[in-house]
Amino acid sequence: MTTFVLFGGTGDLARRKIIPALYSAFVNDRLDASFRFIGAAREGLQSEDYRQRVADAIAQFGGKVSGGTPEKLAAFLAVTYYQKVDARIPEDFEGLRAQIPVSEANPTLFYLATAPNIFIPVVEQLHAHGLTAGNARVVVEKPLGRDGQSAQAINQALRQYLHEKQIYRIDHYLGKEMVQNLLALRFANSFLEPLWNRKWIQDVHISISEQVGVESRGDFYDQTGAMRDMIQNHLLQLVSIVAMEPPVNADPDSIRDEKVKALRALHKFTPEEVSKKTVRGQYRAGAVDGKAVPGYQTEPGVPTASRTETFVAIRAEIDNWRWAGVPFYLRTGKRMATRSAEITINFKPIPYAIFGNGQGPMRSNRLVISLQPEESVKLFMKAKEPGEGIRLSEVALDLDFAEVSTSRRVESYERLLLDAMHGDLTLFVRDDELMAAWNWVDPILQAWQNDSEGLKSYIAGSWGPAAASYLLAQHGAAWGEEYVEG
Amino acid sequence: MTTFVLFGGTGDLARRKIIPALYSAFVNDRLDASFRFIGAAREGLQSEDYRQRVADAIAQFGGKVSGGTPEKLAAFLAVTYYQKVDARIPEDFEGLRAQIPVSEANPTLFYLATAPNIFIPVVEQLHAHGLTAGNARVVVEKPLGRDGQSAQAINQALRQYLHEKQIYRIDHYLGKEMVQNLLALRFANSFLEPLWNRKWIQDVHISISEQVGVESRGDFYDQTGAMRDMIQNHLLQLVSIVAMEPPVNADPDSIRDEKVKALRALHKFTPEEVSKKTVRGQYRAGAVDGKAVPGYQTEPGVPTASRTETFVAIRAEIDNWRWAGVPFYLRTGKRMATRSAEITINFKPIPYAIFGNGQGPMRSNRLVISLQPEESVKLFMKAKEPGEGIRLSEVALDLDFAEVSTSRRVESYERLLLDAMHGDLTLFVRDDELMAAWNWVDPILQAWQNDSEGLKSYIAGSWGPAAASYLLAQHGAAWGEEYVEG
Repeated sequence: MTTFVLFGGTGDLARRKIIPALYSAFVNDRLDASFRFIGAAREGLQSEDYRQRVADAIAQFGGKVSGGTPEKLAAFLAVTYYQKVDARIPEDFEGLRAQIPVSEANPTLFYLATAPNIFIPVVEQLHAHGLTAGNARVVVEKPLGRDGQSAQAINQALRQYLHEKQIYRIDHYLGKEMVQNLLALRFANSFLEPLWNRKWIQDVHISISEQVGVESRGDFYDQTGAMRDMIQNHLLQLVSIVAMEPPVNADPDSIRDEKVKALRALHKFTPEEVSKKTVRGQYRAGAVDGKAVPGYQTEPGVPTASRTETFVAIRAEIDNWRWAGVPFYLRTGKRMATRSAEITINFKPIPYAIFGNGQGPMRSNRLVISLQPEESVKLFMKAKEPGEGIRLSEVALDLDFAEVSTSRRVESYERLLLDAMHGDLTLFVRDDELMAAWNWVDPILQAWQNDSEGLKSYIAGSWGPAAASYLLAQHGAAWGEEYVEG
Repeated sequence: MTTFVLFGGTGDLARRKIIPALYSAFVNDRLDASFRFIGAAREGLQSEDYRQRVADAIAQFGGKVSGGTPEKLAAFLAVTYYQKVDARIPEDFEGLRAQIPVSEANPTLFYLATAPNIFIPVVEQLHAHGLTAGNARVVVEKPLGRDGQSAQAINQALRQYLHEKQIYRIDHYLGKEMVQNLLALRFANSFLEPLWNRKWIQDVHISISEQVGVESRGDFYDQTGAMRDMIQNHLLQLVSIVAMEPPVNADPDSIRDEKVKALRALHKFTPEEVSKKTVRGQYRAGAVDGKAVPGYQTEPGVPTASRTETFVAIRAEIDNWRWAGVPFYLRTGKRMATRSAEITINFKPIPYAIFGNGQGPMRSNRLVISLQPEESVKLFMKAKEPGEGIRLSEVALDLDFAEVSTSRRVESYERLLLDAMHGDLTLFVRDDELMAAWNWVDPILQAWQNDSEGLKSYIAGSWGPAAASYLLAQHGAAWGEEYVEG
């Protein structure tokens, strides 16, 4: 029997992401025949009440689930249960314990979709009730700490009760098809790896822009900010996959060994470097897609004089033989012009243009891996225009994923849930990766704290503060989106 | 005034290719307002008769000409004239002379679409009548000689009356969009050139296969054979463009300087090497596209015991730093399974497959440049299939030429005629290129002549003799077409 226990089972993340992902796996027969789903939360609900909430969540957020039918839904609800669990009440865990057959043959996944301050009490109680023995795994969500010290404390507490191999630190960006495809592109092809270094790559851009603001999460977000919410986890994970050396093999720890090496090689900033190589911003009132939106400081839950950053741009560097001197430009922000997540590898310009520059200066070759809103891989290059003479224009060699396979696309949460149930740690973050990321982020956060001047404002719906463009422009670079293709 | 004089103006090449190409240039306003077209041949025709033949040729073979209208046709015929010219009758050239204003301001193009034995007498007479002075250019068609010695004799005779810069040796493969695009791909992009050498390229395949037999040209073809008809010119020109070093600039002679260096670096075969590294074949009765076709020896005009090759496969090598050890597999044949012309650059396999081999052995990356029947550039690579785990499949990054530009596509003859009229020699073959090609071909032809055993037979409609597959298989390679994509 496989048991999936969802702490925070009535929460927002559960409703929006986890329950629909679980249902999709169920509908597509990706779960054990003996699978059971137990929602757990503080509320006193009956399983029947919870089933209604699960059905509602699937109706509202399961739009991407293909193949769902009323029969499938009924079958899913038939294996759905509810258990009232308050982390502070040990007896509640006895009720949970009674429902779970603990043994090697019965994998149990505890998913902690709760506030981070509940992680330790829950794991402590799981351990006290013998639930971490046998074939038990625990999935934890970000944020894991607000600096290196607090992350270390969480790690140590988790490790008191769990082996590292039982801990699944989820970063849903790692569940995206294109992120895994980046591994395939790099290590299953011979034509990219020779170019994948300081000799041929000019710079790397990694940008995740959101159009949304802080929604209903104003108070949480204001404690967090873009650096902790996005850079420390998602963007640095992408950096590590772009920058890593070829792993010994495809085993989870071989891949994570190389990722952590890349993260450790990130050049740590002095306070002076922080002021030169980072830009932080906070949005003020503006318009997104033509609709007026309020400024950050007037969002519900946000203090009027908040100095939390909603935008970050960084010129990162990696101090190793492969990447020395190649800027990694990282950018993320809320209330930006478009919603997109993109990795751009800009190759160096050709050494000499025998055909001249044609119609104005030409961008050099680049590989663009889009994660959002569409998933694609494009290699932009120059080709001759049809007709007389040699006139060059830019064209994209375009990877058609429809052509690759008719396999079902799997959303990142579903992919990661399945991996966790199958015990595959490849796409989860190891403790040393987490610490390496914090060790790089910490000095930046500290320098910002000591610098009351550095927070720029930007108009909601723009591309962030002008300083973010200057950060690149002084090195002759520009964010990809500022080009108008002609 | 620009004058285009077409010797062989009533012949097959004129009707099929040159007249439709000229008309297409006219229709698309690519010719001078003062343009005139003079057809010349031995027959005694009036201009009015010739106009009818021109109109017929356009009706029959001008199907690809876009924008033709009855008015355009009438305008074209209004500047079309006929001049009876027999190469052996000097007086005939006086009539021609009377029609041509010889001066620097009046470019004149003499296109010799005649049997090669007429080239010298025509040029001699043009010279004797002062027609090679001023702004005169002469276009000559293949075959230029049947070995190095005879080619040298033609070159010397031409050079007696013309400067090298007046001689346009046409190879219509050079007029193909994709061949020029190969120059752009290589020298306007930074991501290919680092890979373009022995370190990263496994081998290069250049294959031109025809489905047609010898048609009505049996007697000519039997004197020629596939080596002289295809390899010496078209395939070696493609080799030179794939293999050349970056030119100093895009001037015609800078490009041709590098092409001739590549041709000179072709490893010359000893007779022993010829028997190991070349395969020649002759088709016997079979079926092409399901229709029965006769064997070569029963084609009209072909002697019953002919030993002329209609198929050639060669494992060529280039002795220089860039290419030492990289086989260039050349193949051409008549009556083959499909009509196609393709250059395939096979990159080396990845050094170690961390994801395993997936579903059976995987082909390594390759760049395929198709010239025929469709023009395309495809980069075949590995990507992850959507879904769980990392399962690789082969996908093509595909260059969409419709996206590049809406410019009118120009057929190769039109492109080359216009280049010749504009005095652009880039896509024409220089004397030293011609000689370098013959110098490589000569020892092979000689060895074949001394070896009565080497001619294999193959079934019309097949991929040629089995020996052509063995030629590659012994080195672990295979012709691209023998794969069935799964």
